[in-house]
Amino acid sequence: MLYGYQGKILWIDLSEKTVNKVDLSADDAYKYIGGSGLGAKILFSTTGAETDPLGPENTLIFMTGPFTGTRVPTAGRHAVVTKSPLTGIWAESDIGGTWGTALKKAGIDGLVIVGASNNPVYLWITDSTVEFRNAEHIWGKDTYEIEDIIRSETNHKAAITSIGPAGENLVKFASIMSDGKDGRAAGRSGVGAVMGAKKLKAIAVCGSQNTSVARPEELKKSITKFLPTLVANTKTRKEFGTSGALISSEKLGDLPIKNWREGSWVEGSERISGQRMAETILTGRFYCSSCMIGCGRKVEIKNSAYGNVDGAGPEYETLALLGALCLVDDLEAVAMANELCNRYGMDTISTGGVIAFAMECFEHGLITEEDTGGVSLQWGDAGAVIDMIHQIGQRKKLGKILAEGVKRAAAQIGGVAEEFALHVKGLEPPAHDPRAFNSLAVAYATSNRGACHLQGFTHPYEIAATIPELNYCKPFDRFAVRGKGELTANLQNIMSMCDSLKICKFAVVGGVTLTHMVEWLNLITGWEMTVADFLLTGERLFNLKRLYNVRCGITRKDDTLPPRLLSLKRGSGGAADNLPPLGEMLSEYYLYRGWDELGRPTQSKLEELDLVNI
Amino acid sequence: MLYGYQGKILWIDLSEKTVNKVDLSADDAYKYIGGSGLGAKILFSTTGAETDPLGPENTLIFMTGPFTGTRVPTAGRHAVVTKSPLTGIWAESDIGGTWGTALKKAGIDGLVIVGASNNPVYLWITDSTVEFRNAEHIWGKDTYEIEDIIRSETNHKAAITSIGPAGENLVKFASIMSDGKDGRAAGRSGVGAVMGAKKLKAIAVCGSQNTSVARPEELKKSITKFLPTLVANTKTRKEFGTSGALISSEKLGDLPIKNWREGSWVEGSERISGQRMAETILTGRFYCSSCMIGCGRKVEIKNSAYGNVDGAGPEYETLALLGALCLVDDLEAVAMANELCNRYGMDTISTGGVIAFAMECFEHGLITEEDTGGVSLQWGDAGAVIDMIHQIGQRKKLGKILAEGVKRAAAQIGGVAEEFALHVKGLEPPAHDPRAFNSLAVAYATSNRGACHLQGFTHPYEIAATIPELNYCKPFDRFAVRGKGELTANLQNIMSMCDSLKICKFAVVGGVTLTHMVEWLNLITGWEMTVADFLLTGERLFNLKRLYNVRCGITRKDDTLPPRLLSLKRGSGGAADNLPPLGEMLSEYYLYRGWDELGRPTQSKLEELDLVNI
Repeated sequence: MLYGYQGKILWIDLSEKTVNKVDLSADDAYKYIGGSGLGAKILFSTTGAETDPLGPENTLIFMTGPFTGTRVPTAGRHAVVTKSPLTGIWAESDIGGTWGTALKKAGIDGLVIVGASNNPVYLWITDSTVEFRNAEHIWGKDTYEIEDIIRSETNHKAAITSIGPAGENLVKFASIMSDGKDGRAAGRSGVGAVMGAKKLKAIAVCGSQNTSVARPEELKKSITKFLPTLVANTKTRKEFGTSGALISSEKLGDLPIKNWREGSWVEGSERISGQRMAETILTGRFYCSSCMIGCGRKVEIKNSAYGNVDGAGPEYETLALLGALCLVDDLEAVAMANELCNRYGMDTISTGGVIAFAMECFEHGLITEEDTGGVSLQWGDAGAVIDMIHQIGQRKKLGKILAEGVKRAAAQIGGVAEEFALHVKGLEPPAHDPRAFNSLAVAYATSNRGACHLQGFTHPYEIAATIPELNYCKPFDRFAVRGKGELTANLQNIMSMCDSLKICKFAVVGGVTLTHMVEWLNLITGWEMTVADFLLTGERLFNLKRLYNVRCGITRKDDTLPPRLLSLKRGSGGAADNLPPLGEMLSEYYLYRGWDELGRPTQSKLEELDLVNI
Repeated sequence: MLYGYQGKILWIDLSEKTVNKVDLSADDAYKYIGGSGLGAKILFSTTGAETDPLGPENTLIFMTGPFTGTRVPTAGRHAVVTKSPLTGIWAESDIGGTWGTALKKAGIDGLVIVGASNNPVYLWITDSTVEFRNAEHIWGKDTYEIEDIIRSETNHKAAITSIGPAGENLVKFASIMSDGKDGRAAGRSGVGAVMGAKKLKAIAVCGSQNTSVARPEELKKSITKFLPTLVANTKTRKEFGTSGALISSEKLGDLPIKNWREGSWVEGSERISGQRMAETILTGRFYCSSCMIGCGRKVEIKNSAYGNVDGAGPEYETLALLGALCLVDDLEAVAMANELCNRYGMDTISTGGVIAFAMECFEHGLITEEDTGGVSLQWGDAGAVIDMIHQIGQRKKLGKILAEGVKRAAAQIGGVAEEFALHVKGLEPPAHDPRAFNSLAVAYATSNRGACHLQGFTHPYEIAATIPELNYCKPFDRFAVRGKGELTANLQNIMSMCDSLKICKFAVVGGVTLTHMVEWLNLITGWEMTVADFLLTGERLFNLKRLYNVRCGITRKDDTLPPRLLSLKRGSGGAADNLPPLGEMLSEYYLYRGWDELGRPTQSKLEELDLVNI
């Protein structure tokens, strides 16, 4: 009996239309946990440097963890793992909603999808069956539209994850969306394009099996005791969602403005803030499975200048990237842009990044109205942003180039465009500025999927969060240098565990300690992990992803930041004068990681982590 | 009457075999001075982004300055300016010896060579004639061998500058050498390959005209009064040449060791030091025109393991790059390697850099004995270094790839080779470590020809040198950060003047102040420049070179250092723990320079520098 797991992984070959139900071994569960960790093991075994991310040989993995479907709060999550068509390296995208829990209820811990279908299909998975269904009739429909159609063809309780036209059109930063208009996104790294290349439109699941827990009563007791703390600590998230952070982020100098060129934007940030949203277009909230925070925003706009909006409201990242980064301070317009991205199925972070990039190219005459089909790509022009979203989602006009992401787009456009293309390893950065939090410089430079704040999630520990188990008993000074390499490595290890177990990062900064996670994991699985084992496992998982990247050619030279974030000061606001001394922090990081001069895990490190023969 | 100049520039078309003697205007002389400054004006007007550096359309400029041929000490220098085949951007290489003075004595301030000959030729220039001479019989001969042959065909007093087989074979870092075995080198940026592409083997000059000076008696008096100071301050240079710095450089943590991977090499540096050279193989010294220091080393080795040596001894840079960088601690071997580089006519800095790069590739199995023709490229193997010099100079076996410089070689070899390829903008760094002198990080990142210590020459100002006129009254702390951007910009402006006037940098750190240079320039030319005018002119010249590079596509993204120098600590020795925070210093530098976000001179800066219409 594998407590905490269903013990089964479905291997689905879309070329051959075959399904294999494979046992999950107890050893693999203990060593790789689940989620992106187990995904890493499978991706490492099935793909490599030569794998074309958009070829049938790429593997697309959906994986739950031992927390999914249990009582653990905020564990309604799953990981999507593949080789990224945007970056050519490790891709993971972690997503909430109800789908992961539904998959596990169907008796399955995860899906491993290989091959590619000739014609559009969707999968319909229940407790006992897996069907390949024709999807010709929904190919081209957006992620909101397919929800009712597929439910009517399967089960009205089915949970659905799908791609929109962006994924079908192989937009390199296409997302995989879940739950229709209560939209949750596996947004980053272009996982939706991989699904599109496989001609897989959607996966609908419905099941009825619970996950067996080794010591359910003790688990219930522990969680019940802890819950009030989490509720108390996440009040603001409940009230304003992620978007509540916009104003404070601007104040801290953390919010990226005008393609990372400006330091402050006080009125703009107020106009598109979560607080303003709550006063205006907010109609309610929605929850992921097993969550009591409910940060999801429901918004409704009728007859705005840009049309109607009825669905998930924009998150902090979306407001920042499609708003502040493009200087758009019209909340209704950003809500519309958000809905369009959700419907097309594309990452709002990369979309905002690539549009701001295009605006700067336009400012410098590298792109003209001839390229945009007459759109004047002026800073702050909400209509232009919305036009670009359509062009990208449909891969039309300038959208053909922008759909490739900033790195490739800059190479195509040439000249000084490279200066405007902010990315790490090909991934556009999210809405936190390494000039405002030194740790983010290391985190962005070393995150396995490219510029990412979530794989390290360090910046909360430079504001308020602590980790008593590591003797981080007070927050770090965000502009200090010493210790940031070590902090980042430790947090990357912990976040690797969160993304494998699955648990939401809001829970972790909301009071769930390492000790809680270890206790719950042991109660669920019957294991006897210590905090040290837990951290070592996280370290194993992070290094395994790095090994995958090393195999793809990643070395120290790639662990850097765009020149603008290293040498251009914000100039005003809460982080006016800071520039992160990346080299010094990286040096500490490599040393702490036990990596060699090239940024590769050493043989002795691999032995320590039991990663020599995988 | 243009005092300080001969007032004539020869434009020579090698395709058409035509010569035009063009007047130098008083305005151009005042605005661009001479040397690399006037060279910049001419290169800017005749070439651009589309120019193939090895095509007949490239311009190869030899230019003296108003100090050349006067009483000013150490002014026996000229500049070679062209578009670099190694980097594709601005190339200048400043060289001592007797040739520049001889050119000026022939009544000419400079040569501008365009086109390309079909067959090898050499030029024979006198007071009244310019001859295109057939050079078939000396094509393939080395730079020592041609000296007697050309003199016997022209005049036994002729000064000769030439290329060796490396330039003929278009080795991308081929040098132009002067004065045969008392060899002086225009080593950097591959100027020799441009001469080779033009099928121009050598230029012999002999003349009898003095340079008219506006106020000769006052000049004589001022210089005579100053000379004892210079003599006193340059005693060590006289005694040990540049090589005298090796031991102290190692102590400071400035010496690059094992391709920039190690921090100390005490015994090795002693074994190949100038002090050891003085005790063993040194037989005498030689002087450039109008120099009283005489840092040139004459050495002789008979029947060593590697053959006989009889000529110029290795400089500091050569000992460091062909010695320490490759872990070779055999002085006789390095002297032999130096003589070979001089004879082949190739830059010892880039040669050492590319061989150390190859050794690291060999260590990692990216290059094997199959590639090297059986040579085992082990660290410290002097024989292997000598073998590689032959392979590069002849473009045989691995030399075909290495002759392209580390940047292109790494791209050809692929994999992690890029990590071992240390360069800035394609130019291999000289033997001073930015981890030992923070200012060098800015200087290397922003030097117009790529990684270069001479275009800024900042590090002496972090040891002992001062500039009273700028209120730099005591040396900077080499590990401090603030002020280094400004220091570098100011010194780049001053060095741009030195390279235009011409005057040796040993004179500048030996006591020649800004005030001296301005005084002498005014006495020579009859101008009434102030120190402020002088600095503004230097700023103009530096910015003009930058403008040239901007035109070739250079922006902020290129102003960086190899990852190894930013994030790998030396680990031991005199600069064990320092890493230069480049971003912070660059930020200060751009601000001080008045450059825009892309690292381009702003319109108002161009107006201030009178560079709007050039």
